[in-house]
Amino acid sequence: MADDAQHRFDTAERDAVYRAIALRRDTRHFQRGQVVPKAQLQRLLQALHQAPSVGLMQPWRVIRVADAALRERIAALVEAERQATALALGERSAEFLRLKVEGLRDCAELLVLVLPPDDGTVFGRRTLPREMALCSAGAAVQNLWLAARAENLGLGWVSMFEPAALAALLRLPADAQPLGLLCLGPVERFYEAPMLEQQGWRQGRRLSDLLMQDVWSEEEVQDGN
Amino acid sequence: MADDAQHRFDTAERDAVYRAIALRRDTRHFQRGQVVPKAQLQRLLQALHQAPSVGLMQPWRVIRVADAALRERIAALVEAERQATALALGERSAEFLRLKVEGLRDCAELLVLVLPPDDGTVFGRRTLPREMALCSAGAAVQNLWLAARAENLGLGWVSMFEPAALAALLRLPADAQPLGLLCLGPVERFYEAPMLEQQGWRQGRRLSDLLMQDVWSEEEVQDGN
Repeated sequence: MADDAQHRFDTAERDAVYRAIALRRDTRHFQRGQVVPKAQLQRLLQALHQAPSVGLMQPWRVIRVADAALRERIAALVEAERQATALALGERSAEFLRLKVEGLRDCAELLVLVLPPDDGTVFGRRTLPREMALCSAGAAVQNLWLAARAENLGLGWVSMFEPAALAALLRLPADAQPLGLLCLGPVERFYEAPMLEQQGWRQGRRLSDLLMQDVWSEEEVQDGN
Repeated sequence: MADDAQHRFDTAERDAVYRAIALRRDTRHFQRGQVVPKAQLQRLLQALHQAPSVGLMQPWRVIRVADAALRERIAALVEAERQATALALGERSAEFLRLKVEGLRDCAELLVLVLPPDDGTVFGRRTLPREMALCSAGAAVQNLWLAARAENLGLGWVSMFEPAALAALLRLPADAQPLGLLCLGPVERFYEAPMLEQQGWRQGRRLSDLLMQDVWSEEEVQDGN
């Protein structure tokens, strides 16, 4: 490689990146009453904002929830959706209700990820405009997630909410869409494995089952939950 | 924090993660005639697969393009879409056509990211099922992107293609969707800034413009391209 030395990653740096990827967890258990210092929060949000985006559209807005009453109203929305999800799950309803699925009231910081009104970017998204905006927003959160892990903080992406109700609470314009409630903060400990696996809700599939060569190959159908 | 020492990240590790986030680039310039060793490719794909996903649905499939003729046909699809994009861009058409927008023929490895048929996962996606699948797929690519950077490899996400035509080439089932052509491999050098900024196509916005508190605040409208 002709790359400059200043741009190279050595083995220790590489391993740190892989370690963050391996140990990052979707977190629902937080230490109560903690804060994320302002400088640390700024670093984390800058990491989110350094994400790639199709056509450089940066399809992410972040609303920091500072008002305690607002946080409480959002938490109530999530609880309503948790109950609706339990109903929709049918026979696994009781099992689902025993899981801890969010840490909105406990986490130090609550951030809302919002997909802004479409800015009309054509570059790279003439054929899949909404898909590319959403993929870019997801990539940005992954930056935040890994940065949080490297800061020894947990992050949980909560997507149990009625979007229209949350949008109304946050006074979003009609063409913006809330995508996630991001719970951030110090944790008691990090899960050894994804919490849904630890709790026996569902096991992840092996990478080898999801890799194909040149053409699609049939896979066994799995029932999602 | 009560976290175990074995789970803690020290400052050097944290800085390595931030460095990967800061130096990662969407790459279109690759060294020709290179290969990615099998063990390295396996590490990279494992990083992708360690991504979070809503309800542990893992909505990603990766098709490795090994056949040179297939790669050529895919590159032709991208060229057709590049021309269609130029037409759609109107007055910036000529400027657009001077940009290098993909490195499909040069990169060491070409991977296709596919959104598989929906598995019916309800957990965390009763209200936004497609959005959550797409955000999860985007997060997975971001893992791959950062791991590639830490391996001193470039990655480019090319989304200029007609999805139905690409799906036909790869013989995808009717309800699967190609999301990206991921060009991976050694590069001559990494861009100092996003290539679209370097080339004067578009400037990214500041983080501070995209942060809000408690409620949406109006922003100046920017025209995308």
